[in-house]
Amino acid sequence: MNSSNYVSTAWNTPFIAQRADPYILHEGDSFYFTASVPAYDRIVLRKADTLEGLRNAPEKEIWHRHASGVMSWHIWAPEIHYLQGKWYIYFAAGERDDVWEIRPWVLVCEGQDPLNDPWREAGKVQCADPFTFVDFSLDMTVFETGGSLYCVWAEKVSVGKKISNLYIARMKDPLTLETPQMLLTTPSYAWERHGFWVNEGPAFLEGEDRVFLTFSASDTGPAYCMGLLWAEKDADLMDISAWHKLNHPVFQTDEAKGLYGPGHNSFFTDEEGKTCMAYHARPYDEILGDPLYDPNRHCYIMDVQWKDGMPVLDYMNQRFQ
Amino acid sequence: MNSSNYVSTAWNTPFIAQRADPYILHEGDSFYFTASVPAYDRIVLRKADTLEGLRNAPEKEIWHRHASGVMSWHIWAPEIHYLQGKWYIYFAAGERDDVWEIRPWVLVCEGQDPLNDPWREAGKVQCADPFTFVDFSLDMTVFETGGSLYCVWAEKVSVGKKISNLYIARMKDPLTLETPQMLLTTPSYAWERHGFWVNEGPAFLEGEDRVFLTFSASDTGPAYCMGLLWAEKDADLMDISAWHKLNHPVFQTDEAKGLYGPGHNSFFTDEEGKTCMAYHARPYDEILGDPLYDPNRHCYIMDVQWKDGMPVLDYMNQRFQ
Repeated sequence: MNSSNYVSTAWNTPFIAQRADPYILHEGDSFYFTASVPAYDRIVLRKADTLEGLRNAPEKEIWHRHASGVMSWHIWAPEIHYLQGKWYIYFAAGERDDVWEIRPWVLVCEGQDPLNDPWREAGKVQCADPFTFVDFSLDMTVFETGGSLYCVWAEKVSVGKKISNLYIARMKDPLTLETPQMLLTTPSYAWERHGFWVNEGPAFLEGEDRVFLTFSASDTGPAYCMGLLWAEKDADLMDISAWHKLNHPVFQTDEAKGLYGPGHNSFFTDEEGKTCMAYHARPYDEILGDPLYDPNRHCYIMDVQWKDGMPVLDYMNQRFQ
Repeated sequence: MNSSNYVSTAWNTPFIAQRADPYILHEGDSFYFTASVPAYDRIVLRKADTLEGLRNAPEKEIWHRHASGVMSWHIWAPEIHYLQGKWYIYFAAGERDDVWEIRPWVLVCEGQDPLNDPWREAGKVQCADPFTFVDFSLDMTVFETGGSLYCVWAEKVSVGKKISNLYIARMKDPLTLETPQMLLTTPSYAWERHGFWVNEGPAFLEGEDRVFLTFSASDTGPAYCMGLLWAEKDADLMDISAWHKLNHPVFQTDEAKGLYGPGHNSFFTDEEGKTCMAYHARPYDEILGDPLYDPNRHCYIMDVQWKDGMPVLDYMNQRFQ
């Protein structure tokens, strides 16, 4: 461990070690897992019949970074989606000669078997305004709700030290935004402004009467935490007045449990249809060097509880210890 | 008139002609008026014993643009405030060699007579984060409420074609921001995105139980209109969740009345303590050339009505026809 203060607890044994930005999909009778790998050089995929099976499922590299140019550096946060009969992977990537020139890109599977069929590069999602994907942008997620497909992503604004915001647009299809962007959230509270002013890593969750977007905030050390936006399910999600933002984090470091900087999560259902969350955290806080290149952001899994129609995220509901 | 379609109506006779971004202050027993002049080269001030007296009060130039460097071009939207025993003017200015390098600046009066005492340049308001006044920024207003002083201004973000947002910060004193910026509003609706994506020209208004900020939206032609934010008076105004934005404009072009692109307003009270609004509009919509250099944005005045605790802005309440 790259740290002086790692303490093993009942909670901080990883579900899958050294996989950050974990994304789990339960599609048909199978579970799929992808994530950022520490070398940031490839996209990997696992498949299993059970959620727990992902833990030791073989990991297949389905795409490797280019030698130069776009998609050649910082391969981050892939998500796999099955949309309108096809498999898609959304991911972010920089350039070897300009490593912070991060943009979101898409892969499309040429068949129905995402582990074994070839993946084709489909370029960027096409946008509908001059403000989208023009600066450092990443963490694209897509979701269907109320009969429409939506895209949410993080993008930085301002000059010099920048601010990472989250934007939403309705999609015409999985490769095309139908509407201009709408700003969903910008860091407004101290817990979103530690080190850097960051909102990133959006994850969609549908509840009984409401829809939710969690996001991750602050720099990627122990201050990293998760915030929550919600809207009524029957609201127009492209009307910003439909969205409400909690003024406090909903999930954060717990020193007693030895879990630091939790975030960049995804939601899925288990075999019984129960809502679960995959997220990453570190089992220590004293990071040697740049937190971005510390490999020990591990994947953890917990049950999502519900109270008064709102999701409850609590380390006590952690699985697979 | 620079137009083919000017029609005189009962409503479009100016209160004061060719003065845009009108700012009226009722302080003590006097009324003060300042505004942008068509040449954008100076700051002017009028004083009168009555509101109507401003109409024909002599206009004094109290400051002139520099020959070069900062504060040498596009002298825009001055506001005069009497704060903590001193007179201040907040205004925006560009540079002759870089005319869009617009930033907010401050003048402080060295005495108690703002028309006759000398004004000193006090530089910029000092900010408390690395994101403030780093890009095209203007339309600074200040207000005191609940025992605190606040600053609201417009600033652009993004690259290439930019987006103008409104930000708020609490102030330590009239020359110093105490807190980092908080984003108040960004253009999210079609009525804020005509031509350019713009929120600008904030104006503060205190009601019975609520406080309000109006702002102007879209490009400065006939689509220019006003939106509204409100918060409960006892809320923490530096918590973004306290602010609510209406999803429709509250004041806009009325062709039948011959008033186009109303906005960039200010609120004040008349001799009887009734709330009034000064705003600019054009008496025609077919502008020849760049709307920014069309001189006929005139100052109009109306009574503000109240309904269910919210301000009502209606041309029927126009004064001084």
